[in-house]
Amino acid sequence: MKPYRFPIQTISHILKQKINSVPITVYGYIKTVRSQKQMTFIEINDGSSSTGLQSIIDSTKLPTIKLSTGCTVRLQGTMVSSPNRKQSVELVVDKLELLGDAIDYPLHKGRIPIETLRDHQHLRSRSNLFGAIWRIRNTLVSSIHAFFQSQEFTHVHPPILTTSDCEGGGESFEVVGGNTFFGKNVYMSVSSQLHLEVLTHALSRVYALNPAFRAEPSDSTRHLAEFWMVEAEMAYLTNLDSLLDFIEAQIRFSIQSILNTSLQDLEFCDGFVQPGLLDMLQGLVENPFGRMTYTKAIELLSLKKEWHYPVQWGLPLQTEHEKYLAEEIQHGPLFITDYPTVVKPFYMKQNHNKTTVACTDLIFPKWGEVVGGSVREDRLDILKENIHYHKLSREEYRWYVDVRRYGSVPMSGYGLGLERLLGICTGIGNIRDLVPFPRVHGSCRY
Amino acid sequence: MKPYRFPIQTISHILKQKINSVPITVYGYIKTVRSQKQMTFIEINDGSSSTGLQSIIDSTKLPTIKLSTGCTVRLQGTMVSSPNRKQSVELVVDKLELLGDAIDYPLHKGRIPIETLRDHQHLRSRSNLFGAIWRIRNTLVSSIHAFFQSQEFTHVHPPILTTSDCEGGGESFEVVGGNTFFGKNVYMSVSSQLHLEVLTHALSRVYALNPAFRAEPSDSTRHLAEFWMVEAEMAYLTNLDSLLDFIEAQIRFSIQSILNTSLQDLEFCDGFVQPGLLDMLQGLVENPFGRMTYTKAIELLSLKKEWHYPVQWGLPLQTEHEKYLAEEIQHGPLFITDYPTVVKPFYMKQNHNKTTVACTDLIFPKWGEVVGGSVREDRLDILKENIHYHKLSREEYRWYVDVRRYGSVPMSGYGLGLERLLGICTGIGNIRDLVPFPRVHGSCRY
Repeated sequence: MKPYRFPIQTISHILKQKINSVPITVYGYIKTVRSQKQMTFIEINDGSSSTGLQSIIDSTKLPTIKLSTGCTVRLQGTMVSSPNRKQSVELVVDKLELLGDAIDYPLHKGRIPIETLRDHQHLRSRSNLFGAIWRIRNTLVSSIHAFFQSQEFTHVHPPILTTSDCEGGGESFEVVGGNTFFGKNVYMSVSSQLHLEVLTHALSRVYALNPAFRAEPSDSTRHLAEFWMVEAEMAYLTNLDSLLDFIEAQIRFSIQSILNTSLQDLEFCDGFVQPGLLDMLQGLVENPFGRMTYTKAIELLSLKKEWHYPVQWGLPLQTEHEKYLAEEIQHGPLFITDYPTVVKPFYMKQNHNKTTVACTDLIFPKWGEVVGGSVREDRLDILKENIHYHKLSREEYRWYVDVRRYGSVPMSGYGLGLERLLGICTGIGNIRDLVPFPRVHGSCRY
Repeated sequence: MKPYRFPIQTISHILKQKINSVPITVYGYIKTVRSQKQMTFIEINDGSSSTGLQSIIDSTKLPTIKLSTGCTVRLQGTMVSSPNRKQSVELVVDKLELLGDAIDYPLHKGRIPIETLRDHQHLRSRSNLFGAIWRIRNTLVSSIHAFFQSQEFTHVHPPILTTSDCEGGGESFEVVGGNTFFGKNVYMSVSSQLHLEVLTHALSRVYALNPAFRAEPSDSTRHLAEFWMVEAEMAYLTNLDSLLDFIEAQIRFSIQSILNTSLQDLEFCDGFVQPGLLDMLQGLVENPFGRMTYTKAIELLSLKKEWHYPVQWGLPLQTEHEKYLAEEIQHGPLFITDYPTVVKPFYMKQNHNKTTVACTDLIFPKWGEVVGGSVREDRLDILKENIHYHKLSREEYRWYVDVRRYGSVPMSGYGLGLERLLGICTGIGNIRDLVPFPRVHGSCRY
């Protein structure tokens, strides 16, 4: 089988090539035009690279229509080494063809505040910043698949439409007419975990990268109504520390991949979004994440008095607590482990003390919780007690409990918020800028 | 950074290792138990391989509880070469530990009809057949990412919740309370194409592997209410034949990957599902797909008289027509191109004759349509006329048209039904067996 080769070269590809005198054709949209009497300088990009392609054209060869930022063009010419110190090569254009004009392009050239770009969700991706974010997101997703495949996981697609609500709590979106179409009320998945656990009984190591939905009317910068989650379940891994090791290795692998593959885009973010980003990411790869029990965390939090939400053993940790622990105590990512049973869901495995469960939340500076995971309760009798204790419907979870009846597999697993991890990797602080078309309380555009 | 290594070995990994006398620990569920007076033979699997691990234990070392199909165990012992011709190696067990018993396991050992397994969606994945299907699905998904990454595409996540209906036709599921939560009516995406086109204006080559939803009350074996689609858009590729070349290369790459990586699982499907499967797949890799215009197809179909649906230029092709063309005329995959404008959506590019559009449906034996694609209409004025012609809401598509106003990018793209391609790869004929938890008209279990 002859390897396929796409018939058009990207600008990223062209910039990596050696200069030669072979004529080339390049496509892209105009970032800037600078006209002098004899020569016109045009920078174009096609989204493949954080640096565009500089090109020079004899002003007499230009089309009569005025070229401006946003126009889409085809250029034919020859690559030469550039006299300009800003770039090593440039394109001397023989022929320029206008493919799409851009009269009154709403985004002017030059730097535009991210908040302004947010109002142009369908155009903002042409900016240098969003180009960089989407390329880093691509590398992040690729690295996730590469890691799980290297560890012999099977990628699966658990369902989006579901009849059960993994976390309880009524934060699910419901589908209109579910009862008519499916014969029962149907919701959009808030987590794939329970379905993954079922598949783990068969395939031992499974992971998913699925969208999840929360109808939480939150207007924070850290929540989306629709977001993407990496979720994994691992059979026979029953030791909480081993789970933490795995999560840490997975995140570290992704960050190392981004440092290897997307360095230019990271440098852009380091320059324009978060100074020091590269050093911080290098630190995440090199230094172990912190580990601390919930009980210890409560002790430390109690030393400080001014909290908006109360600090007390048996109450959940709030974002202000999580951020403080990660930012002021650990100065980096921190696994909080062994939360009280009462604040965690029914499927987490009880510790011997019966007051805490073998679980973790991984918290990061600025973001708070990025990962939640636990050893799963595999003992049928205790699982049934937990369902009763959490006042959940036995009928709704019968299928899930049923699996534990037939060759129950001890396992642990976790879920990781993709957009939050991307926020850490890029320095972007508002989750609405980390997915191309954000869906949040009060807004679903296009 | 030290490479991470998962602390537990899979059976697949163990079977590939050289035999040595180092003690090993293996986890899995029991497929069969055969007890003799002195020795007991147990076959276990963990879902990592289509062949299980044969193990032998001194009957006196067995736990008092009765071992049976479905029990989950931990075995410690030593790998030795096997005297049995069925396998080359086997495990001599020193210690057996029961992790999960399986009293009254509802699936008996041995071959179970696929229809019976369908009633046990939460247990069926432990069968040899579904193990093979999910592993092939994993390879298929991996190969899709590998191909698009090799061609410099950016993977993106277009939204599931949307305010627009790509195909028109009212086959969307609506979300309860969209207006309250989002401020407008919100639907579940039937296709990501329009959002991908927007991103193509910035990133040039994008692809997505997203779930899509159709509220079509069809009870066929080829439709799911929730399915997964590979969708790709390619800037500056404006020649229909180039699009066909690309689609063909993408599918061929995936099939070659499965032949390389999942041969044992394919052999299982060849033996138990579709005899001749391997030869057919090898043929797909080696032989070019057929290409035929819609007009030619109508000519050929008109020669045969007994159709349930009428055959006439200007009417859509029905499944019976598609299957006939692929099965009886082409004996393989066939691109049908250049359909009448009237039967295709507004975003497809008009041919010069103005009666047909530059589009294709790729049809396969047994399945009919597996891919639909086209060159996209990039001319603003014609796009607006098309929206009017198809009686669509100008307001609803304003954002999409808006992109074409500012540096419109010529492009083509397509969507491929993942489950249908998996059906071709495995020989499985009912789409409900190609996704772990199928959602169809009348059924949404778990």
